[in-house]
Amino acid sequence: MRENLKIGLFGFGCVGGGLYEILNKSNLLDASIKKICIKDPSKDRSIDSSNFTTNKADLLEDDEINLIVELIDDADAAYEIVVEAFKKGKNVVSANKKLIANHFAELKELSEEYGVSFIYEAAVCGSIPILRNLEEYYNNDAISAVYGICNGTTNYILTRLVNENKSFDEVLKNAQELGFAESDPTLDIEGFDSQFKLQILIAHAFGVIVKPEDILRFGITKIQESDIKFAKEKGLRIRLLSRAEKVDDTITGLVAPHFVDEEDATYGVNNEFNAVTVKGLFADKQLFQGKGAGSYPTGSAVLSDVSAVRYNYKYEWRKIKENSLNFNNDFAVKAYISTTEFLALDGIEFLSVEESFIGLDNSYKVGLITREELLRIAESKANVSVVLFQDPIHDGTALNQKLINIQKN
Amino acid sequence: MRENLKIGLFGFGCVGGGLYEILNKSNLLDASIKKICIKDPSKDRSIDSSNFTTNKADLLEDDEINLIVELIDDADAAYEIVVEAFKKGKNVVSANKKLIANHFAELKELSEEYGVSFIYEAAVCGSIPILRNLEEYYNNDAISAVYGICNGTTNYILTRLVNENKSFDEVLKNAQELGFAESDPTLDIEGFDSQFKLQILIAHAFGVIVKPEDILRFGITKIQESDIKFAKEKGLRIRLLSRAEKVDDTITGLVAPHFVDEEDATYGVNNEFNAVTVKGLFADKQLFQGKGAGSYPTGSAVLSDVSAVRYNYKYEWRKIKENSLNFNNDFAVKAYISTTEFLALDGIEFLSVEESFIGLDNSYKVGLITREELLRIAESKANVSVVLFQDPIHDGTALNQKLINIQKN
Repeated sequence: MRENLKIGLFGFGCVGGGLYEILNKSNLLDASIKKICIKDPSKDRSIDSSNFTTNKADLLEDDEINLIVELIDDADAAYEIVVEAFKKGKNVVSANKKLIANHFAELKELSEEYGVSFIYEAAVCGSIPILRNLEEYYNNDAISAVYGICNGTTNYILTRLVNENKSFDEVLKNAQELGFAESDPTLDIEGFDSQFKLQILIAHAFGVIVKPEDILRFGITKIQESDIKFAKEKGLRIRLLSRAEKVDDTITGLVAPHFVDEEDATYGVNNEFNAVTVKGLFADKQLFQGKGAGSYPTGSAVLSDVSAVRYNYKYEWRKIKENSLNFNNDFAVKAYISTTEFLALDGIEFLSVEESFIGLDNSYKVGLITREELLRIAESKANVSVVLFQDPIHDGTALNQKLINIQKN
Repeated sequence: MRENLKIGLFGFGCVGGGLYEILNKSNLLDASIKKICIKDPSKDRSIDSSNFTTNKADLLEDDEINLIVELIDDADAAYEIVVEAFKKGKNVVSANKKLIANHFAELKELSEEYGVSFIYEAAVCGSIPILRNLEEYYNNDAISAVYGICNGTTNYILTRLVNENKSFDEVLKNAQELGFAESDPTLDIEGFDSQFKLQILIAHAFGVIVKPEDILRFGITKIQESDIKFAKEKGLRIRLLSRAEKVDDTITGLVAPHFVDEEDATYGVNNEFNAVTVKGLFADKQLFQGKGAGSYPTGSAVLSDVSAVRYNYKYEWRKIKENSLNFNNDFAVKAYISTTEFLALDGIEFLSVEESFIGLDNSYKVGLITREELLRIAESKANVSVVLFQDPIHDGTALNQKLINIQKN
């Protein structure tokens, strides 16, 4: 059953280096890294230069290498490597959420066509084995929702914003100095990273393949001090959630800051930690919590995938094959929308308003709002911050029908 | 690949009834319950009496039944059923921790001998898929510790003890009225249930088979109001932990109340919830949290096992086959030991004492103490409560060597 693995490794950054160390230190696996392909040969490396090449063919055309571990940043280059690896009959382990989210259906089908393993647990929430559990364990209990903190950088910033009286920019700068945020933090703080991960979660939880850009996305850059104050006064915390829910017979998903209360397990998930909640019809809420990033935690997740390949493990994507659910972007949610320019609030259309506050520095409304209207806010340049509530997502079609009926009567 | 499952169900209590409902409601599985064996035919049942029999042979000798789901209380009767099922070539799903913990090696070997699946995820922490993850995912990252809240009843009582100013007996009575504790709560509150579960966790996490009764065990019945007060003053909470740790090249385990601080993920796990932390050398701490008991959560865990059988899933018990670790009962831990009879403290031998307090109502000491001495306390009738700290467990042999060296110099 067990394959003796010869690994061709692409990338020797934080995670690649971690994997290398773990493989050597743990001695638990009879897998070895034969060659490492890097982009910049002039960089100082911790191991001998004979391990490295800059020519990808040295890995892809080496018949002895039966597993490609792809850990590079560039999603386009990764795409070429992975496709080429499949065609050469090589198994692939990847941690590249952008690559996977953008080419989900194609890569799934290609890997099946060539009969190889394609596993990417480390791409979603680092060390947390969420994909494996969605694939293997939660395949009967009808899952009603999956949501979680999938990005450590933003959670670190949100935690610091609450604990210290500093501005967003100060906290971000501090996070960058400590290595918790990239020098270009856009992918994280604007929610793109969380959007990619949600795409993958939705595929494995519900069997629905959606384009990442079709998932409504808010980052955390527009959150004001007054929003943090609002949360504190109500005993709430703000978490950037990747959230997918079954609404009738459709799946709805979004990435946005949410208020969570003490009852929710993500309330206690601070700093760089990640956590995912799976809500089943029968099993109720299950939380998986762990370190979402970092050299060792992510390296360890990659190692688990390597080990799975050794036992010929493949995702079966059963839900994708069996399910017939559609992604539904016609929905409405309960939102808190605040701004320093109170006139801006007048231009925003709510289905219904529960609270309305006008202050000297800051004004806000709380109410039910459509996805369409939220998208308009997301795309505008106005200084408006959006924080959602964890109330259930409403189906737009059903809501509209209700409104039409009300108007008729 | 898929077997069409005809289920013979033993037991129609809380979990059995839950499973029946879920199977019918979810429609997600082409498995059906052919016959249900019960003890008491006179009880009122929610479904037609034609489903039931009191003769176990009706299930075990029916060739069409290819899966026995065993959900009865009586571990001795369950043992006979399971062994008989194996011999008839039938797969078995069980939620009976006492049965499994007491006959671990034998049942493992028998199931292998007869080539059938024997799965029991629901026996440990209800809906939390901890065994599956230990088997499949954490098989490389050297696990350094596994600990958790494995018993919902005691966690419910401990939560209430902190939140309300009531005595242990009052809280227990209340828990019984609400259905969170059995009419005979001994198995739960004296820690036997947690001991069984720890036996199973140790086998799957470390590949070590230990007799449950060899695991040091303290329940929660001797916890005093003054202990709760001590915890509160220091910002700690008390949790009954099933705890196993790698100490050098051995495995050590114990069940006891522990002080946990805000930094530990079990701090926020309240009421009837269960949670298990897996600590890996590289992945760091991972928390799995969910409902540990109840008709639906446990029924759902059983259903996941049923589904796994359908795909011919078997535990491989790889770690048991590959590992050569021993269980080590020669250890010392940091403990808080308190009593209302302060003279009783004098009779207790500590290796070293960090704190000593004598009060009118209550006295305590905090210090390092051997397993041997703790066992003496556990077996005595004295009114002494023991709460451990989460500090690492010390190897007894190494400690003794150190003490001998100190005495020599």
